[in-house]
Amino acid sequence: MNQPAIKHALNVKRADDFAQWYQAVIAEAELAEESGVRGCMVIKPWGYGIWERIQKLMDAEIKEAGVENCYFPLFIPLSYFTKEAEHVEGFAKEMAVVTHHRLISDGKGGLTPDPEAKLEEPLVVRPTSETVIGAAMSRWIQSWRDLPLLTNQWANVVRWEMRTRMFLRTSEFLWQEGHTAHVDEADAMKETLRALEMYRAFAEGPLAMPVIAGPKPENERFPGAVETFSIEAMMQDGKALQAGTSHYLGTTFAKAAGIQYQNKEGQQALAHTTSWGVSTRLIGGVIMTHGDDDGLRVPPQVAPQQIVILPMLRDNEGDDALLAYCEEIRASLVKLSVFGERIRVLLDKRPGKATQKRWAWVKKGMPLILEIGGRDAEGGLVSVLRRDRLWRQDAKPNFVGQAKDDFLASAATELESIQAALYDEARARRDAQIVRDVTDLEGLKGYFAEGNKYPGWVEMGWAKPTGEALDKVVEQLKALKLTIRNTPMDAEKPVGACPFTGEPAVEKILIARSY
Amino acid sequence: MNQPAIKHALNVKRADDFAQWYQAVIAEAELAEESGVRGCMVIKPWGYGIWERIQKLMDAEIKEAGVENCYFPLFIPLSYFTKEAEHVEGFAKEMAVVTHHRLISDGKGGLTPDPEAKLEEPLVVRPTSETVIGAAMSRWIQSWRDLPLLTNQWANVVRWEMRTRMFLRTSEFLWQEGHTAHVDEADAMKETLRALEMYRAFAEGPLAMPVIAGPKPENERFPGAVETFSIEAMMQDGKALQAGTSHYLGTTFAKAAGIQYQNKEGQQALAHTTSWGVSTRLIGGVIMTHGDDDGLRVPPQVAPQQIVILPMLRDNEGDDALLAYCEEIRASLVKLSVFGERIRVLLDKRPGKATQKRWAWVKKGMPLILEIGGRDAEGGLVSVLRRDRLWRQDAKPNFVGQAKDDFLASAATELESIQAALYDEARARRDAQIVRDVTDLEGLKGYFAEGNKYPGWVEMGWAKPTGEALDKVVEQLKALKLTIRNTPMDAEKPVGACPFTGEPAVEKILIARSY
Repeated sequence: MNQPAIKHALNVKRADDFAQWYQAVIAEAELAEESGVRGCMVIKPWGYGIWERIQKLMDAEIKEAGVENCYFPLFIPLSYFTKEAEHVEGFAKEMAVVTHHRLISDGKGGLTPDPEAKLEEPLVVRPTSETVIGAAMSRWIQSWRDLPLLTNQWANVVRWEMRTRMFLRTSEFLWQEGHTAHVDEADAMKETLRALEMYRAFAEGPLAMPVIAGPKPENERFPGAVETFSIEAMMQDGKALQAGTSHYLGTTFAKAAGIQYQNKEGQQALAHTTSWGVSTRLIGGVIMTHGDDDGLRVPPQVAPQQIVILPMLRDNEGDDALLAYCEEIRASLVKLSVFGERIRVLLDKRPGKATQKRWAWVKKGMPLILEIGGRDAEGGLVSVLRRDRLWRQDAKPNFVGQAKDDFLASAATELESIQAALYDEARARRDAQIVRDVTDLEGLKGYFAEGNKYPGWVEMGWAKPTGEALDKVVEQLKALKLTIRNTPMDAEKPVGACPFTGEPAVEKILIARSY
Repeated sequence: MNQPAIKHALNVKRADDFAQWYQAVIAEAELAEESGVRGCMVIKPWGYGIWERIQKLMDAEIKEAGVENCYFPLFIPLSYFTKEAEHVEGFAKEMAVVTHHRLISDGKGGLTPDPEAKLEEPLVVRPTSETVIGAAMSRWIQSWRDLPLLTNQWANVVRWEMRTRMFLRTSEFLWQEGHTAHVDEADAMKETLRALEMYRAFAEGPLAMPVIAGPKPENERFPGAVETFSIEAMMQDGKALQAGTSHYLGTTFAKAAGIQYQNKEGQQALAHTTSWGVSTRLIGGVIMTHGDDDGLRVPPQVAPQQIVILPMLRDNEGDDALLAYCEEIRASLVKLSVFGERIRVLLDKRPGKATQKRWAWVKKGMPLILEIGGRDAEGGLVSVLRRDRLWRQDAKPNFVGQAKDDFLASAATELESIQAALYDEARARRDAQIVRDVTDLEGLKGYFAEGNKYPGWVEMGWAKPTGEALDKVVEQLKALKLTIRNTPMDAEKPVGACPFTGEPAVEKILIARSY
């Protein structure tokens, strides 16, 4: 017997064109759109709602760790970067520069920057705030009693990007940036690793996105950092997404900004600083981890709404009773809790056909969809669609009829089950796509050859070369469009020789294509 | 007998120099500081914590009204303003203009904008987002079914200011801006007034700051608005602070951005739009409404912490028992609720003398301060200081000793009482300083004469002149450094003649000095 073909909600499939599928999900789930302003996107309510959930949950973690939120200026004087540029090789120069503070008529019906209002010192729109926060820290810190100083801000930053992709690489993006100062390396490193572990647990918890945490190789460090750690997630096309970073900055920025303190012995010492951040890029990670050929699937913990109720209105006298029944279910659901918070429920009473609305919510990735018709209301029933179990074997939507009270009793458990299922699915897929039997360059070349459309990651040992020896490795990998993601913290000890240098391998690294 | 003199915590008094007192409160309460970046401030944890409280409470109100949060670009192409400049007289031109996207070495050890990286079209850092949101609305709205469209964003905006004052007038500030589109004037005006009422209730509720709501005169309207409403609060120097505005924009921005919809009759029609906003300026309002000569007093509903527990540590073996007792009180308090939320309590275990810490918290405006010593712990007692009842008649801090359980039983009520007391005090002061018996220009001149250091407001009738007649009134008032704040919505009908035109008065207006 033929398996009936499923008619998916999107008109492009992951397997056919992943990049186009990604754009389709963003459009069809109404997450964001191009703004008409170069490199900047408009984040629409459903996309911004996911960001608000991420903010809310992570902000609680940040506060719990004793870190205090502040707000620092959007603009940074050019001279601050001069200091940094002296200290830091590989200083990124693609930034938005403010040079004027007034517009005047250009005499041709348009406007132009007023030459009379040229700034004496240009201002840079912050690409990150190490320099300006360093200047504040140098004012705030006098003695060891002022340390550790733990600050964070939620802000927009701008990095001029030539090729942009929504959520993944935009000129303006939203993020949090933690900045801390400590008495010594040990305390700063502890904080660096605390932030890294916070990100790991956040990715694998609320985002249901498995990640691998570890230090980046020297060439991938944040400019000025002594050590950069990342969490790396595998997208469904096998590419790696750097989903968060935590940097131990040594005394680099303390030197540049003069962050000094009097130690217990009465001597002046340089503070050791850290910085760590995650951004709206996480939403790109959620899309490419959980999305399917029917659109987005949002993990319930970060879903702006977890359950939508769709009354099948008929524009007749039965509608009032149906709506009353739906409202009763909504009122019962919002009294329930899951993941330590009240369940979030939307009763969608907007005009329009219930099936059209159903597919709109499927594409948005609503975890649970309830469709309720007049007969359900009369019989005390609901019809439930789990977004992660969308299709029956006969290619029809997998609605399950239930008594209303049974559904209410199991709603929280269902949401937990969806959260776990999304994680398990992503984890199994990722684990199956980490290859550990490649031991030489030829093997690497073979695995990432063109025939393998969506290759995963290679975990292999290496000798951890530095300097020029590392540059050579990076070049070889670059020719294959590959990068070293990080050194997994929980990897086994390597055996054998480094495929690049022939020396004994000392640690394992992950090699992948990346976003 | 002599009344002993109170030794206040600040070294400048409101009565002596209000502007200097304001700066002193901001510094001593550690709310914010100059950043070293022109016109931009650093908002420190206690100041930012108040903003987070404002955001949390107001965001809930905004969502409750069915408005959805989005995020729109920081940068706006110059051409968008050209369109606006054509439509809008009084177009504000002081804006930060981005002209380059790269820095290069200047050959003298510094950096400079790369002439090769000059933008074809300069970008303006948003001073407000009507234009860019209007462009999005024109994409999102096709039919009457898409209306009303209710959006809001929390964002930073920049308006180049020559003279800045922290929280009140800074080049960069944080705000929320609501932008909505409607089928007709009636629906748009309803939304304009809903937002105004939300602001009024928010100011008088969580901020304990009495305000007067009403439409602004024609000359004070937002450029392009058909009607601008404001809430006006009286500061302790008698000046008015515009604390929030709500604009009915008619079809001005719909015309400029092409926000059209197909109405039920199948014809194209222009949408009617609104916008409304409040900003970090509200924190300036809280300072100047509730601050006293000992620093800030934060209304409990917006205080980042409502109760601080200060253990009087002695660095001896008794400290453990004392800390355990304090922790027990903390744990009991955080289980209690007030204003529909859990009570926020901080156990301040930092090193340092308890009295020093006490005065630091007094200056920050902590609503309730508990000092607990070893003997309190043994006796099951607490010593409680209400920030709004700081001094005894004998000029000593007004600590009240209580049994611990009595304090726990009354803590929520005390916080409610402080919230109410701050409002009542501000309300009584404001009402006493609104003068209603001035009926002519000479009276106005007399009331605002130099001898009256902190004059309040004059409420008087006028004929509501427009055009050139209004310009003349504005000039006359300007000579006295006065402005018309608004037309109070609940004022009585005027009697007699307009002092400016001699015609019969038709409504009452508020005249004041202002921030």
